[in-house]
Amino acid sequence: MFELENERAELLEKIEELISRKRYAELRDFLLPMEAADIASLCANLDEKVPLVFRLLPKELAAEVFVELESDEQELLILSFSNTELKEVLEELYLDDTVDIVEEMPANVVKRILRHSDPETRRGINEILKYPEDSTGSIMTTEFVDLKAAMTVEGALKRIRRTGLDKETINVCYVIDDNRHLLGVLSLRTLLLAEEDDIIGDIMDRNFISVQTLDDQESTAQALSKYDFLALPVVDTENRLVGIVTVDDAMDVIEEETTEDIEKMAAMLPSDKPYLKTSVFETWKARTPWLMVLMLSATFTGIILTHFEGALMSCAILTSFVPMLSGTGGNSGTQASTAIIRALSLGEVRFSDTLQVLWKELRVSLCCGVCLAAANFVKMMLVDRWLLHNPDVTPMVALVVCCTLVGTVLCAKLVGCSLPILAEKLGFDPAVMASPFISTIVDALSLLIYFRFATLLLGI
Amino acid sequence: MFELENERAELLEKIEELISRKRYAELRDFLLPMEAADIASLCANLDEKVPLVFRLLPKELAAEVFVELESDEQELLILSFSNTELKEVLEELYLDDTVDIVEEMPANVVKRILRHSDPETRRGINEILKYPEDSTGSIMTTEFVDLKAAMTVEGALKRIRRTGLDKETINVCYVIDDNRHLLGVLSLRTLLLAEEDDIIGDIMDRNFISVQTLDDQESTAQALSKYDFLALPVVDTENRLVGIVTVDDAMDVIEEETTEDIEKMAAMLPSDKPYLKTSVFETWKARTPWLMVLMLSATFTGIILTHFEGALMSCAILTSFVPMLSGTGGNSGTQASTAIIRALSLGEVRFSDTLQVLWKELRVSLCCGVCLAAANFVKMMLVDRWLLHNPDVTPMVALVVCCTLVGTVLCAKLVGCSLPILAEKLGFDPAVMASPFISTIVDALSLLIYFRFATLLLGI
Repeated sequence: MFELENERAELLEKIEELISRKRYAELRDFLLPMEAADIASLCANLDEKVPLVFRLLPKELAAEVFVELESDEQELLILSFSNTELKEVLEELYLDDTVDIVEEMPANVVKRILRHSDPETRRGINEILKYPEDSTGSIMTTEFVDLKAAMTVEGALKRIRRTGLDKETINVCYVIDDNRHLLGVLSLRTLLLAEEDDIIGDIMDRNFISVQTLDDQESTAQALSKYDFLALPVVDTENRLVGIVTVDDAMDVIEEETTEDIEKMAAMLPSDKPYLKTSVFETWKARTPWLMVLMLSATFTGIILTHFEGALMSCAILTSFVPMLSGTGGNSGTQASTAIIRALSLGEVRFSDTLQVLWKELRVSLCCGVCLAAANFVKMMLVDRWLLHNPDVTPMVALVVCCTLVGTVLCAKLVGCSLPILAEKLGFDPAVMASPFISTIVDALSLLIYFRFATLLLGI
Repeated sequence: MFELENERAELLEKIEELISRKRYAELRDFLLPMEAADIASLCANLDEKVPLVFRLLPKELAAEVFVELESDEQELLILSFSNTELKEVLEELYLDDTVDIVEEMPANVVKRILRHSDPETRRGINEILKYPEDSTGSIMTTEFVDLKAAMTVEGALKRIRRTGLDKETINVCYVIDDNRHLLGVLSLRTLLLAEEDDIIGDIMDRNFISVQTLDDQESTAQALSKYDFLALPVVDTENRLVGIVTVDDAMDVIEEETTEDIEKMAAMLPSDKPYLKTSVFETWKARTPWLMVLMLSATFTGIILTHFEGALMSCAILTSFVPMLSGTGGNSGTQASTAIIRALSLGEVRFSDTLQVLWKELRVSLCCGVCLAAANFVKMMLVDRWLLHNPDVTPMVALVVCCTLVGTVLCAKLVGCSLPILAEKLGFDPAVMASPFISTIVDALSLLIYFRFATLLLGI
């Protein structure tokens, strides 16, 4: 499958050729050994031939491919399905996948899906749909194996053999009482390694971790990752088992949330579509608001510069170092804020660590600042003064720039590390407080420091 | 467990109290129901009391906690262990966890670990250690269930019951021939739902995906996520099965690699330690090199500004818009580069999509640029000229700034989207070509555009 990316064009060509020569049996044999995710990825380039390819596949594989398609392709396929075909595909899908699909479809398609689902699935869909987006309830599945504490291992294995085919995972089973309260969890491994006449209640694990339907889906996914579980039980407020979240869905959630965080740090509104699937209008809508805010907030730096116009006129060379100073300040701040935002989202740093973080950033920024200042002094003397013959670059001017560098890096790192922690404490999203916003603040601060040192040392 | 973050202080207090009152049996009962990962997280604040807490725990839980500790805490614990204790812990560990620990320990501790491991474990450790860092071989485990194609389901289940306790996962089994060539995979689910006298060779899945020991660990982890597998078989160049990679290790790899990408995008050298565990010196070392490169590369913007000193002198108000222009350019470029870098790493965009990406960014940047320019024109007229009574801000100056804005956003987005794709194509890491580097290029370009428009429209 690692060759796939390179072989993609070749595979597509082969498929197109088989279709054009109507060699459908050969095409079917060609597709059969592939993974569903790979076939779905190829479908993105097959356009109107997708329904044809789809009908060649055996039912189970077809359903797996269907789940992996992008939602616009799914919609096209559903529209091309006969009622019988739709029914067959829906029967093969796991409940949580069906819900994912329903959530993305327009109302008329949803109605058609619900009409052709069996009553139990319909109940399940409506159950999951009632949970808010981003809640654990919205990513769970209601298909799991439940056992009773009084069963023997033999009885439990029989029950799994009887009902297991329709369940998303049988690797972990859940033990409930008559009121569906969750009593314990039991891995298939424990079950298999136990004696046939052991009682489930004796071998199940009573110290389990469960999440609630309204818990944030990201924290549930992080919990699955932290504890290395394959699935987590989801209970309602009265500890009744209503579903499970499996590790594959958790990985998808983590990937989506990371993309959102990265987008926010780069001053974009998060989008949940892949890059090439987003329209120009949507991309524009996601990018312009923050650019606008940041552009208008740069008014402050403009005012500061206008205010010191006199000083700049009397020592024009100072202007040429403004981009370097604001660039270095921005980069220093971004380094600190990025490190902290990531540490916050991985749970490595908490609000109670604020002082420790500040103390660390203070020392780091002094080290960085002094290094940069020293290098810059040498560079200004050697390159600007000596190599480029610029007599305006006096040692005193270099001193002003270097002192400003130390001050700017210090401010940038302290602002950069404290704003995200503060945002998290106040209940805002730390990623939104990230780099560009911090750059604007640091820009203004660095100019103030610059002119303060210029007034002090150059007497202007 | 979600309450844990808030209850942390309370739990720690309770533990400290029980220790100080020497109520060890009570402490043991208090810790028993907790998850290993949570106990490990509490240990971070218990310092020299960790060995005491550790000795109270039952062997199996103790080993699980040990795996979850940070490596400096593991080292301290190993140093405090008697030889018997060390042996007991090592016996309970899975092989891949032991290897992770060995990789982090200083030589004398490694020697002690190897001396007290049983010969088979020692062979396994040495086997995995020989694979390069970041390779799939370095994260695999050699403990898995292997079956023969001629076995019956009953025989296979017997083999799993006999050997399964020591294996990291029994959810997926691997079918090999006498020369250890991988023939097929078989989930425990299929095995359990089959008839007792079915032959393994008939029910196993021959269309499996495998990875090689030297494949990049990130692509292996992404494959596990993409195909929703619980484990992937790892083969050598002759298709002989040497190990498996499980989904929990894949999640850790994805998390680490994402952190690395984010760090690189923020101009830091990647580090593999949590934020608070990194020393000031290490943080300084990770942050200074890029700051230095970017600071020195700002020399170009300085030269451009010096070159246009005459123009700036004759129309001083132009200076005050430089930070706004370079800020907006930097932010626009970062938006484009971040979107592309993420899309590249998720496999949504390929080199063959370059033209499509450029065409999209061209349209987006024109829309963004025109919007920003319009807003900026209104702002300069209303705020700068009318509200702040600055007569220098003429409509002509505003026009220069606004034309520059459109040009800058255009350049920034095109540079921002093409550099990462180019870097990937040339075999460099796209994340390293990210925001700060692009900002520097865009800064210089935006100044050139600015002075071009100023010369054209203001005749200076």
